[in-house]
Parts: sequence; C-alpha cells; structure tokens
Amino acid sequence: MTDIYIPSYSDIVEAHQRILPFIHQTPVLTCSGINEMLGADLYFKCENFQKVGAFKFRGATNAVLCLSDAEAVKGVATHSSGNHAAALALAAKIKGIKAYVVMPNNAPETKKMAVASYGGEITFCEPTLTARESALEQLVKRSGAAVIHPYNNFQVISGQGTAAKELLEEVPSLDIIIVPVGGGGLLSGTAIAGKTLKPGIRVIAAEPEMANDAFQSFRGGYIVPSNNPKTVADGLLTSLGSLTFKAIQMYVDDVVTVSEELIIYAMRLIWQRMKIIIEPSSAVPLAALLQYPELFKNHKVGIILSGGNVDFNNLPFISLR
Amino acid sequence: MTDIYIPSYSDIVEAHQRILPFIHQTPVLTCSGINEMLGADLYFKCENFQKVGAFKFRGATNAVLCLSDAEAVKGVATHSSGNHAAALALAAKIKGIKAYVVMPNNAPETKKMAVASYGGEITFCEPTLTARESALEQLVKRSGAAVIHPYNNFQVISGQGTAAKELLEEVPSLDIIIVPVGGGGLLSGTAIAGKTLKPGIRVIAAEPEMANDAFQSFRGGYIVPSNNPKTVADGLLTSLGSLTFKAIQMYVDDVVTVSEELIIYAMRLIWQRMKIIIEPSSAVPLAALLQYPELFKNHKVGIILSGGNVDFNNLPFISLR
Repeated sequence: MTDIYIPSYSDIVEAHQRILPFIHQTPVLTCSGINEMLGADLYFKCENFQKVGAFKFRGATNAVLCLSDAEAVKGVATHSSGNHAAALALAAKIKGIKAYVVMPNNAPETKKMAVASYGGEITFCEPTLTARESALEQLVKRSGAAVIHPYNNFQVISGQGTAAKELLEEVPSLDIIIVPVGGGGLLSGTAIAGKTLKPGIRVIAAEPEMANDAFQSFRGGYIVPSNNPKTVADGLLTSLGSLTFKAIQMYVDDVVTVSEELIIYAMRLIWQRMKIIIEPSSAVPLAALLQYPELFKNHKVGIILSGGNVDFNNLPFISLR
Repeated sequence: MTDIYIPSYSDIVEAHQRILPFIHQTPVLTCSGINEMLGADLYFKCENFQKVGAFKFRGATNAVLCLSDAEAVKGVATHSSGNHAAALALAAKIKGIKAYVVMPNNAPETKKMAVASYGGEITFCEPTLTARESALEQLVKRSGAAVIHPYNNFQVISGQGTAAKELLEEVPSLDIIIVPVGGGGLLSGTAIAGKTLKPGIRVIAAEPEMANDAFQSFRGGYIVPSNNPKTVADGLLTSLGSLTFKAIQMYVDDVVTVSEELIIYAMRLIWQRMKIIIEPSSAVPLAALLQYPELFKNHKVGIILSGGNVDFNNLPFISLR
C-alpha cells in the first residue's frame, strides 16, 4: 500500500490565506429558541451563505489556485451533479481558466444552470458512475485538464478545513463540532483543524441511517462503499476516499446516524426558526442533536451548515402533506 | 378636525434607546448576483431575523415600555391575525404583563401557536372586522387593558423607525430607501428617520397593485380604504391610519405598485440567491426594482425586509406548479 499523505493544520492555514480574497467569511448564527429546546448552546457556521451556496467553493478554489501555470492553462475537470461542479466552475472562472464538468443527463435543471452560468463547459452522459468516469477520462485525454476530485484531494480537504478554522477563531470555547459526512472532505478538514486548534474538542460526524457507509467504515476500520443509498440528504450519497478515511480514522471521535424523519424535521426547524435556507444535508447534524440530546446537553456545539441549494419544487416537508 | 401629532426623529432615537436591550440589531446583507441583475447596489436590512420574525417587535416593544405602571398592570390588547399579535405578546411577556389578543378563528395555526407560545391570551371571534372590534371592545371593558394599535399609534411608529435608523447608520451613503406599505407604520417611521438623517434621500413605498389603497391615498390626498384586497402579500392588506397617512404625506416621495407575478418572482429570487427566508410582503420592494429598474439604476438602495413568517405548506411559487 502506498503512503497516503493527508493535510496538516498548516496546510489549512496556507489554504485560508490563498482563498481569503475570493471566499465569503460566512457568519456564525445562534438561535435562542433551538438552544432552549436542546439545553445546549449551538453555533451555526453558515456555509449556505458561501459563494455558490456551499462550503465546496473553499476546497475547489484552493485546488485551482494551487495549480502550476502549465497545469492551469489546460483547465480543470470533474464529474459531479452537485455543488462541487458549480464550485469548480466558479473557481476556474475567477482564475480565468476553463472548467470541464461531466454531468449525468438527469441532473437537476438548477444545477446545470448554475454550472453554465459560471461558464463551465458541460458534457452530459448517462447517469451511471461508469458512464461518468469514462466521459471524464475521454475529456481529460482530449483537453489535458487537471481532474479535481470533489473530496479525495489534498488541496480540496485543506480548503474545506478553513470553515472550521473560521468557526473556532470566532467561537474558541466550543466543546464539540459536528458536521455532515458524505465523501468526507468537510469532515476531514474540520477534524484536522479542530483537533489542532483545540485538542480537547470532540469532532463528531452525522450521517443519514439510510446512507451509513461512513458509520460502517469508521466502526469496521476499512472503507465500506456506499450501497444504493436512499436519503433526502442528497449531498451525502458518496463513499469515503482513501485520504478522507485516513483523516477520519486519525481525528474523528464518533460517527452517529440519524433517521430521515429527524433530518426533515431539523431542516424545517432551521427554516422556520432561523429564517435561513439550508439543504437537507445541512440538517443532518441538528438531527443528530435531536436524536441523541444527552450527547450534547449543556455543551457548546459548533455546527457547519454545509449548503443552501434546494429544489423549491421538491421540498421534503411539503411533499409529506 | 383634531390635531394629529406624528413622531419626530427624536422620538425614534428615544425609542431606540428604550428597546435596544430587547431587540436584535439585525444584519444588513448584500447580494452581488442581484446587484448585477439590476445595475444597482442593494442593501437588505434583515428584519426577518428580528425577534418574532418581523420588524413589528420594535414598535410593539416600544409601546409596551412606554406604558405607565398603572396602565401596564392591566395589560395590553389588540386584534390581529398577523405579526403584530405575536410581537405584542412577546413584548408583554418581557415586561411581565398580560397580552390579550383577539384573533379570527380562521387565523393560521402557526400564528395562533406563536401568540400562545409567548403567553398571549387569545380570544377567538368570527373573521370579520366588526366581530374583531366588538370582541376587542368587550375584552378591554372587562380587563382595562391598553389597546396597542398595530400601526396607527405614536409609539409603534417611533419603534418601527428604528430599523431605518440602524440601516442608515450602517450604510449612510444610501440614495434611496424603499419599504413595503400596508397600514403604513414601517413606512412612516422609515420616512421620518430617513428624511431627518439624510434630507436628500428618496423614500419610496412599494405596494401590491391588487391592494393599492396607499397608492390611491397618496395620489388623492385623502385616505382611500383598502377594498377587498387580494394579494399574496398577506401583511399588506390593511388601510392607512390618520397618523401614518400624515407622515406619508409629509415625508414620502412616491408610492409605486407592483404585480403579483413580480412579488412571487422577487420572493423566490431572494430565497434562491440570498438563502434567507422572507415572507411575500417583504418581496414587494424588490419587485418594484424589477418592475421599474430605471428608477433605481446606478443608485444605492436600502430595502427593509419586513419579515420571515411563512406558511411552508402554502408557498406561492410552489402552488404555481
């Protein structure tokens, strides 16, 4: 097995300096109503207010800015139907280079429009992983573009860690930090930043029960692939990668899983009480606090709200009627 | 005709000092995407983040805090199916006095729950203005409570003006300030604060075409009552009062009306691009910028987002499907 190098906190500090002129330093919000309900002090880091509406812009921007001139001139490429595609397209636009994005032809119209609006060049393919990977391979062969993986990438992980760095700099007294886990990029960066800035902090990952591959991987000690996951948290469908799994093994204290009902309830609670729009994946940490309140009671808990890109025509708490 | 005394800016300054320990000093947000779309610089004062989710808490709190001890001990009363009821209930709770609220029995469940959760004592009545006024009269006869009108009240207007005061203190370079108009409490307070702090500023009111009584009153020079209005902007159904009409005549530069389609479009635009939840009434000013872009182009425009209390089961842009 080859050595796997994961970022250290100094990589996150460098990433932060690099991306600072381009990102939003998002606000940290509190909600006394939700605090009273849970008997805990919650601090919500609002990456739903980040550019492109998700933390993904941090990692994508760092990766693009780390390219050599010779690499950059050939552009960047990825396959994604979600926030990473839009983030990479905007990061490339800012750098003045091309972004090639392979998207499944059934991707939501809003995601296609977001990528196109940032000048990303979209190649459509059949909605299977094989078709996506093969389309990306051909595209890279033709263009020579650098592939930027959505999470299993050193610079992407370093960039995602900057959200937790900002949160802990603003609220250093946190006891716990909890984030959703899909591929593990946000979780890895958060864990590295959290445990370095404050070794006593607990870093917890929250995952849908219906997509519990990170939970199984964490418990089992090897990467269990995501197997046909069906969850409303559509940003958390992917499997861990080699880098993110290593970071999680080294730095994460626990992975907890939550029910679909509580994800939807938590999403609605944040919309209604905080008057901010978050996507279902962002509600997974609050769902964990609701499902396991004793783990968090009387603690100061930082929650990263990962994104706010929602299909308003398909809101889970409305289709429940 | 008796003399009508409206607040001056010093009343707003006093109100601000009075309510400051109890209100949120709400943030001012910007959105580069919407700015580009309109060719103007927009500054959104987020009263959707205010306590009870609406600017109404400012005026209600000021009115409650202005009561004499002899008045306060008997409590406060109003009839309302909207944000003023919840605002008055919370203001009374903070002051430690009773709030009696007459609500039509068809008021939305969420509004009833909000008033009840702040300890307001609800009396239900038939959903007609006559039934509401008669129920309130009986209630006041029985309790001796002080009636706090939702807008045609000196202290309420003074309190509502504190939002514009905060906005202009944070962004003194505004050329225009635009707010929605229903009964005119927010508009009056905004106009008094705006024209005193910055005499050259233009104060514009935005109103649904389908509820254009303020537009007619402003043009006609007398109060034209609201006549069976049907608009998605459910906070803007009421008629002007004697105080608010006088303030509007003295200080407001123009009243513009907007289509239902643009209100819904503007609401969705703010949700989607800014990731914040506003109620339909709050979208009316942005709808005006979309309908009359030439009035605002190349200007710095302050917009007060009046509230964020939305019935998620009845979203206008979703029922349009």
